[in-house]
Amino acid sequence: MKIAVIGRGRVASHMVKAFAGKAEVVEVNPHSLEELPSDADIALICVSDNAIAEVAAALAAKRVEGIVAHTSGATPMEALSAFPRHGVFYPLQTFSKGRELSYAELPIFIEGSDAATTQLLWQMAELITRDVHGADSVFRKRLHLAAVFACNFTNHLYAIADTLLREDGLDINVLKPLIRETVAKLDDGTPMEMQTGPAVRGDTATMAAHLKLLASHPDYQEIYRLLSSSIRK
Amino acid sequence: MKIAVIGRGRVASHMVKAFAGKAEVVEVNPHSLEELPSDADIALICVSDNAIAEVAAALAAKRVEGIVAHTSGATPMEALSAFPRHGVFYPLQTFSKGRELSYAELPIFIEGSDAATTQLLWQMAELITRDVHGADSVFRKRLHLAAVFACNFTNHLYAIADTLLREDGLDINVLKPLIRETVAKLDDGTPMEMQTGPAVRGDTATMAAHLKLLASHPDYQEIYRLLSSSIRK
Repeated sequence: MKIAVIGRGRVASHMVKAFAGKAEVVEVNPHSLEELPSDADIALICVSDNAIAEVAAALAAKRVEGIVAHTSGATPMEALSAFPRHGVFYPLQTFSKGRELSYAELPIFIEGSDAATTQLLWQMAELITRDVHGADSVFRKRLHLAAVFACNFTNHLYAIADTLLREDGLDINVLKPLIRETVAKLDDGTPMEMQTGPAVRGDTATMAAHLKLLASHPDYQEIYRLLSSSIRK
Repeated sequence: MKIAVIGRGRVASHMVKAFAGKAEVVEVNPHSLEELPSDADIALICVSDNAIAEVAAALAAKRVEGIVAHTSGATPMEALSAFPRHGVFYPLQTFSKGRELSYAELPIFIEGSDAATTQLLWQMAELITRDVHGADSVFRKRLHLAAVFACNFTNHLYAIADTLLREDGLDINVLKPLIRETVAKLDDGTPMEMQTGPAVRGDTATMAAHLKLLASHPDYQEIYRLLSSSIRK
């Protein structure tokens, strides 16, 4: 399989690494689309959401024989409808420069404009991972929403814990063993079964003491109250 | 060092494992305190918070020569003031039956009734970990509060994500690579620097779409709104 990876950012560099040795990969600068080989099976657009339309327009001016797909969770497949065969190849991960990732368990979500396209994108995903799913635009949006709760919002709670610990001369590092174990325990049961802490125990004395400790952070108090009452339900 | 571990629960069994080969460890059933060796340097009470007083009372009836300490983050040291030398040996971790843990990075918080007691508890902690701190009762309470945000509340957000994903025939497993990477990225900067997602980008279109997707979960909508506005600040 010959894959042209269009982009120079974090997603592009991880895609190049993920397919290395598993497909023929050509790196294409999104500002020099003449580099695109005409015999690529797939042109994979790995640019930021708001640059996809521009790259697609520039690509449409060329003759592209293969599939054109993007890697965005938030962009509908229709953004590429100018191409006869188009689709989405969405890896559900946060990609950072220079961080090593294990791709074999990376979930990838596929959508294709027709059955043959879907199948080829699926085969392409299976080159790097065991975890391939079909997903239309609405499904991808809902996945992203779940990820906001499980990752963006949890990171904000780490930031709050970090702020509180810094007031005592510590920081989030002291909680890392506990944070890692909380995540590891997700392998032993559903998160609801694994819930611990004063709220699920109904330990009102501890909760009252905690709210008092948060007196100088009314915004954290509000978060504490809302999440505790949600846990109780 | 001769350590008597009093208890039969999760904390007790992890303490026995942690000190194996590093100290002389004697396991003592909290209901048969006659098993307590009279020459133990430390009697370490590893029972649930609301059983500490009872075990302490039973211990006080015996002649205990060494230090008596408990392992509770939420219990003041004074719960053991009946003993001339007493203290707290608080490991900041969630202990589960049958789960392997690396103790070398386990943070342990020490409080002693006098300098010599503090020193001995500190040495005892250093037998198993590199990460020892002093902490009085107020400090331990604040640590516990930070842990509630970083672990109990984040676990609840995993539960919400799990609920949402199950409506689409998936579950939290599909987010685990992303969750693990979110935690791993804490090594690269403070959580505030690592924050990603629609709220920190000010992407109001995505946030509005997410709130619409949550129409059938008004409680999740409220959490989404509150955490998003807290991230914006």
